[in-house]
Parts: sequence; structure tokens; C-alpha cells
Amino acid sequence: MAKIAVIGAGSLAWSTTLVRDLCLTPSLKGSVISFVDINEERLNLIHTFARRYASEVKADLAFEKTTDRRAAIRGSDVVINTAMAGGHSYYEAMRGVSEKHGYYRGINSVEWNMVSDYHTVWGYYQFKLALNIAKDIEELSPDAWLLNLANPVFELTTLVSRETKAKMIGLCHGHLGYMEIASALGLDPKDIDFEAIGFNHVIWLTKFRNKGEDAYPLLDEWVEKKAEGYWRRWREEQTSPFDLQMSPAAVDMYKTYGLFPVGDSVRGGTWKYHWDLETKKRWFGELAGPDSEIGWAMYLTFLRINLENIARAIKNPDIPLTSFVRPELSHESVVPIIDSLVNDREGVYQVNVLNKGVIDGLPDDVAVEIPAKVDGRGVHRMRVESPPRRVLRYVLYPRMMRMEWALEAFLEGGRDALFEWLIVDPRTRSTEQVNQVIDAVLSIPENQEMARHFS
Amino acid sequence: MAKIAVIGAGSLAWSTTLVRDLCLTPSLKGSVISFVDINEERLNLIHTFARRYASEVKADLAFEKTTDRRAAIRGSDVVINTAMAGGHSYYEAMRGVSEKHGYYRGINSVEWNMVSDYHTVWGYYQFKLALNIAKDIEELSPDAWLLNLANPVFELTTLVSRETKAKMIGLCHGHLGYMEIASALGLDPKDIDFEAIGFNHVIWLTKFRNKGEDAYPLLDEWVEKKAEGYWRRWREEQTSPFDLQMSPAAVDMYKTYGLFPVGDSVRGGTWKYHWDLETKKRWFGELAGPDSEIGWAMYLTFLRINLENIARAIKNPDIPLTSFVRPELSHESVVPIIDSLVNDREGVYQVNVLNKGVIDGLPDDVAVEIPAKVDGRGVHRMRVESPPRRVLRYVLYPRMMRMEWALEAFLEGGRDALFEWLIVDPRTRSTEQVNQVIDAVLSIPENQEMARHFS
Repeated sequence: MAKIAVIGAGSLAWSTTLVRDLCLTPSLKGSVISFVDINEERLNLIHTFARRYASEVKADLAFEKTTDRRAAIRGSDVVINTAMAGGHSYYEAMRGVSEKHGYYRGINSVEWNMVSDYHTVWGYYQFKLALNIAKDIEELSPDAWLLNLANPVFELTTLVSRETKAKMIGLCHGHLGYMEIASALGLDPKDIDFEAIGFNHVIWLTKFRNKGEDAYPLLDEWVEKKAEGYWRRWREEQTSPFDLQMSPAAVDMYKTYGLFPVGDSVRGGTWKYHWDLETKKRWFGELAGPDSEIGWAMYLTFLRINLENIARAIKNPDIPLTSFVRPELSHESVVPIIDSLVNDREGVYQVNVLNKGVIDGLPDDVAVEIPAKVDGRGVHRMRVESPPRRVLRYVLYPRMMRMEWALEAFLEGGRDALFEWLIVDPRTRSTEQVNQVIDAVLSIPENQEMARHFS
Repeated sequence: MAKIAVIGAGSLAWSTTLVRDLCLTPSLKGSVISFVDINEERLNLIHTFARRYASEVKADLAFEKTTDRRAAIRGSDVVINTAMAGGHSYYEAMRGVSEKHGYYRGINSVEWNMVSDYHTVWGYYQFKLALNIAKDIEELSPDAWLLNLANPVFELTTLVSRETKAKMIGLCHGHLGYMEIASALGLDPKDIDFEAIGFNHVIWLTKFRNKGEDAYPLLDEWVEKKAEGYWRRWREEQTSPFDLQMSPAAVDMYKTYGLFPVGDSVRGGTWKYHWDLETKKRWFGELAGPDSEIGWAMYLTFLRINLENIARAIKNPDIPLTSFVRPELSHESVVPIIDSLVNDREGVYQVNVLNKGVIDGLPDDVAVEIPAKVDGRGVHRMRVESPPRRVLRYVLYPRMMRMEWALEAFLEGGRDALFEWLIVDPRTRSTEQVNQVIDAVLSIPENQEMARHFS
């Protein structure tokens, strides 16, 4: 039994899954879920959904709703942050002006962060929101756990863990890509023991065992003998731009860096995989991956359709919501982690926390994504295999540097922070181009406050 | 009294200075200097010079010459490495093919290493030579000090210190730029107490005191009130491309990163200062700095003229060499350091050694340039002010990453190492361009062995 505040609850696709998992976890019965969103319409929808769903599955949970974040945080045991400041339309506006000045996919997309809604250098509002939530927790519920699912998980976990006392865990489901690897090899994911570590969205398969035996040789065999055939079918049959765990990009990264990339990590890489639509198609299939004009438009459209479907279902009392959101536990770890924290039930989860010596060769105060034991006393880091030098030097170091630059931009401001970000970008052709795109990004109406920060 | 091996002694401009300083240091009397070079003509020249010069100033030193490096190293107390594998013509050949493929100044020139003869990613032969010298020392004179003046001091000091047991100190005279700063402000360099730290060629003025008082305010005043006038005169009167300690580039770096850059550090920076000749002229004066087609041609020509002048003087017994190389101690620290090491005379010098905790925020096993006490027991690191976050994050981290990549390229080989270097370069327009320039660089006749290493 706990008080759980959910900030950004209006993102329905995600919140309905959360509600389902909460309802299906009896050890959390009696808990109070407090939904927060600045969009009242969406807030009402999720609140209605939750009450109806709980009643359908006979779950003993109470649901509140408020637009007042601080009211929800006060007295909470767990605070979940999924908020995206400005939403997708704001992100797309910044991408649009960037592209006018020659920065395909936006100035925020750089080596090892090509994910289309992962704010870094221009994440001023998103960083500020996450930091303010953490400061609210420090003040109003200092013992609460902050579970951060909002992107950029890497930057936000590092920032908040450095700058506040909030007990934070960053969460993402990208590591579940290991199941796709297993399936492609004809293995049962249940037999797999894996470890994938690094930074959020930049994790690498350091351990891959099938029934106790190293399964990397099976992966090698697949690459050598079956990949070409798989790709032929996949190029014709791929229906989701996110279907790229076994793409040519993933295999090329494996050959280059020495470990297989897992989940969203495949979406990263240098511009080698991302120069333009044609390049992306070669590496990620005909939909060009989620981080392309095709794939991302599909994703945003899917989000909208999904939202409309859910909204319609919620508004129609004749359709049982369980027919729409089946009462089965998802693979998301957030509710099991809450159970572990609140009810002291030990579990092992993929988490993002400050490194503190776990991965050799990385500083202590940088958020790493690793498996860890979680129980009533919190997060207990486990020993992991360190990634090879190639992964550290060509992948993790450059990504870490961008994270530090993004944090510097947020914490210190000043135009130089944006300039330094862009002057090392392979899309940059001249100093004038850098100055023009900075002016353009800072000139969009939503960025008035941000423009002062960077002036 | 010591045995001193000088490898690469045929670089006459430098070796004549060394001979002069040795001759003028009475505490080293009785020492044996063993010159090594693969160019016998030059070797004979420096040997003749040394014997005549010593005789003119009545110095009690013995001089040997050999093309056999190991013979010179055997039994040495000090080994000086100044060798440049392949010489300037080899470097220029690689620059030439790079430029044909769109890499102005060569693929080796990147952010914070624009210096025109500072091998990094393509330094295969130079790295191998330095490492082999260190291995020879391990075997033949394990107690000897290795004073490395050969570039790249940053990469070589890190590499050799990590990979061998040779006691190595990297030396460079770039820090003497502090004297130019003092002079520009109308101060007497003798009154100045300074500290400039970072990596070789990337050092920043962390301490600048005049007669015990902080002199940064004087620098600020100069920037505000006198810089414009200084630059007007300087643009008309500049005669050396190396005259850029007080250039607009230096001041811009100071404003951007928060500390004044010292010496060769001003030659670095991002492409902001280096896009093309026109850009370089704006920041470095009409000669466009040493690292431009104008400045570097001037420098190489000057080297040749100087060599011819010295050779002519050496061959003419009627001209006293002291009329040509005046018997006054230079500002070079190599001979004073030898004196400190061999005769246990404590002195403070600017050295390059592994960090080992001196500069906060940098790993222990990376060579930093710092002031240190040197005596008969070796190098004693001193406490220094850590550079500000901006210098660390935007300058030292990126430069350190390139160093790690250069070492990886040398130690591990493989085409990927060159590819990864280039795919993040702002001069890169496509994957094809990267592949073409790699093929072109590896195809020059001198690079047959290197091509195998990177295949």
C-alpha cells in the first residue's frame, strides 16, 4: 500500500499499461494513485479509465487526479515522471527549423543519440521540469522514490542524481530487445540469461547465455549463415519501423564495436547509418527506422490513432475496457519495482543509476544502465562485465561527452554552449550555418524563455 | 657526468641549441653525448658542430655518433627522443592526399590538434618508433630517463608511460608563451609567476601573477581597451606566423572557455578558427597562422634555410660557430632537467607525465602537462588549480578522446579505427568520402606497412 504520484499521466498509451499492471499486482492493494497532467482532458480520460478498469478487474486501488503537481507529490512514496515538456509538437517544431538550416533530424540528433524524442542540448524545458519535480520531492516527500521514465533517461538521471537528494531510478524498456535476439535465433527468451550495460539507449550485450551456455556463438552463426536470408524476408515483410533489433545496422555495430547492441541502441550510431533517408533504408529497412521522416511519422500517427481508440473506448461504457487492454501483466518493470521498493520484495531489474564504480573506465557520477537488485532498502548495484575498449572509446565516451555538454547547456546557458555543440557536427558546413540555426531554434515562439537562457 | 643519447639528432636547429646548452652547463662536464640519426650526412654535421662548439667554448664533453640506436641507448643515463619518423616530406604527402578528398590540412588535423606536424591517428610509424626506443631502454638501460621532445608529446607520453616501464618525461616549450602575454601587457616576464596546465599543446593559464598579484585583471583590461589597437598594428607588422599568442583567436578562446590559452594551444580550437585560409587569416593574422598553407610553407622554408646556413657554417672552419650560435643559455628546459636528474639539483619544470590525480576530472593514466619538481629521484607532481568545467568539457575531453582513438588505432589497427576517426569529422560529407580518403592515405608508397596494420 502506497501513495503513487504519476506525473505526465496524460500519455495514455503508457498510463493504461501502468494502470493495468497496478491493478494486477495484489500486493499493492489499498494504494492511492494520483494522476497529474497539465492537459485536463487527457487527465480526465486516464482517471476514468483507471476507475473503470480497476472496477472491472476488482482491484482495490484509489485514483485521484490533479493539475497541481505539488499536491500529488506531497506525502507520496513513489513519484513516477513520464512528462514530456511541450510534447511532440514542440519537438517537431525545433526539428523543422533545424532541417531548414541543413541539420537533418534536428540539431539535437547526434552520434549515439538519433532517437527522435530524446531531448539533449535543446532540452531546457524538459530538464527544468524534471529537476523541479525532484526538488519538489526533496521538499514535500523526501523519502519518496523517483522513478523516471521520461526521456532523456540518461541525461535526466545524471542531472537529478547530481543536483538533488531525490532517490532516483531511471527506467526504460529497451533492454527487452534481448528477447528479439533470442527469438531470431530460435531460442526461447525464458531460457536466456543476459546482461546489457552502458548508458540508456546505448547498451551492449555483455552476457548472453542460453540454458547456462554462452549463446554468442549461436549469434555468430546466425550472422554468418542466416542474416542475409532473414534480411531478404524482413525487407519485404517489416511492418514496424521499430523492428530493427536484427537489422544490418545492428550486425554492423556488432562487427565494428565487438558486442551486440540491444534495443534502442540500434537506433544510435554515427552518421554512417543516418546521413539521409536512403542511408537509413539500407541499414534499417524500407521504413528507414523510427528516426526517419517515414518511421517517425508512422509512430506519431500510431500514437494519435491509439489515443483516439482509447478515448473512444473510455467514453463508451458498453465496451469492457478489459476487452481493449487485456488483464495480463506487461513486461514493463515499473510496477514490479514499486512492489520491490514498497513491499521489500527483492527483484533484479534493469535500472539507470549513477555508476559509482560499477563499470570500469566510466566516472562515478554518470548514470549507467545496469542490472541491479532492488528491495525495501533501495538499489544494490551488482558486479558486471566491463564493456570492451572499443565500446568504451568509440561509443560510450562520445555519448558521455554529449551528455555533459547537454547538462552544461542547461545548467550554465549561454550561446557558446549551443555553438560548441554544433561546431563539431558533421552536418555543419560553416560558422554562419551554426549561428543561423541557433537563431532559428531560439526564435520559435515557445522558446522565448530558452532564448534568454542561451543569450 | 652522464651518458646522454640523442635520437633524431640530425634535426639541426634543435640539436645545435642542445649542444650549446650542454656546453654551457659546467655541472655536466665529462659527459658523453651520443648522437643518433638514420641520416648520416646530418649526423656528421651535428657531430662536427658539437666538437667544434665545445672546443670554442672550452667545454669538457665527449661526442659520439652512430646510426645504431641500440648502441647509443646501451648504458645511457638519459635518452632524448626528437625523431620524426618519415620527416616532414612524409607528413606533407599524407596531407596532400587528404586534401584531394576534402580534408583541408589532412585527416590528422582535428579539433584541438591543428598543429601541422603532430601525428595522431596516422602516426603509426612515429608511435612505433617511440615505443621501440622505450623498449630498447627497458632492455638496455632500464634506469635511464627518457626525455621525449618528439611530437605528438601528448600521445607518445601517454602511450609509452602506459605500455612500458621506461621513466619518461614529455617536454615542449609552448608554455613559454606566458612571456609573450606578459610583454604584451607591458610586464617584465621575470616578475611573472604562472601556471599553465592541461595536455601538451592544450594548456590554459590557471595562474598568472605579477609581483605576487593576480594579473588576470590586467589581461582583462588589455582585452577590453588595447586589443583592437594591438591587432591593427599586428596585422600590418606580423613577420612570423607563430606570432599569435595575443591574436583574436586567443582572446576568443579566453572569452569562450574562461582561461587564456598559452603557446601552441592558440593554434588549436575547433574548425571555427580553421575552416579555410580566409577564416584562419581573420583569427591568426595575414600569415594565417603556422597551420595554414602560407604559414606552414614559410616554416618549412625557414627550416631549410636554417639547415643550409648551419651546414655552411659547420663546413667553414674560418667562421667561429659561437658567432653563429651565441654562447648563451636558451630557454629550453631539457638541459636543466638533465642537470636536475643527473646531479640531483631540484628545479621546477613544465613536464608531461601521467596525471595520477593531479588534475581533477581527468583519468590517472592520461599524460597531462603540469609544473613539477624534478630532482635526482625523479618527477614530483605538485598541486595545481583544476581548470574550469568549460575547459575540461569542451577542450580537454574532446582532445583526450582523440588521443585515445589515436592510441587505439596504433595498438589495435583495423580499418574501423580510421573510419571512426573520420565519421565524426565536420569535413566529412559522406561515407564514400571517408572510404576514399582512407584508401588514398593507405596507398601512398611509404604506407605499405601501415596499410597492412589498418587492413
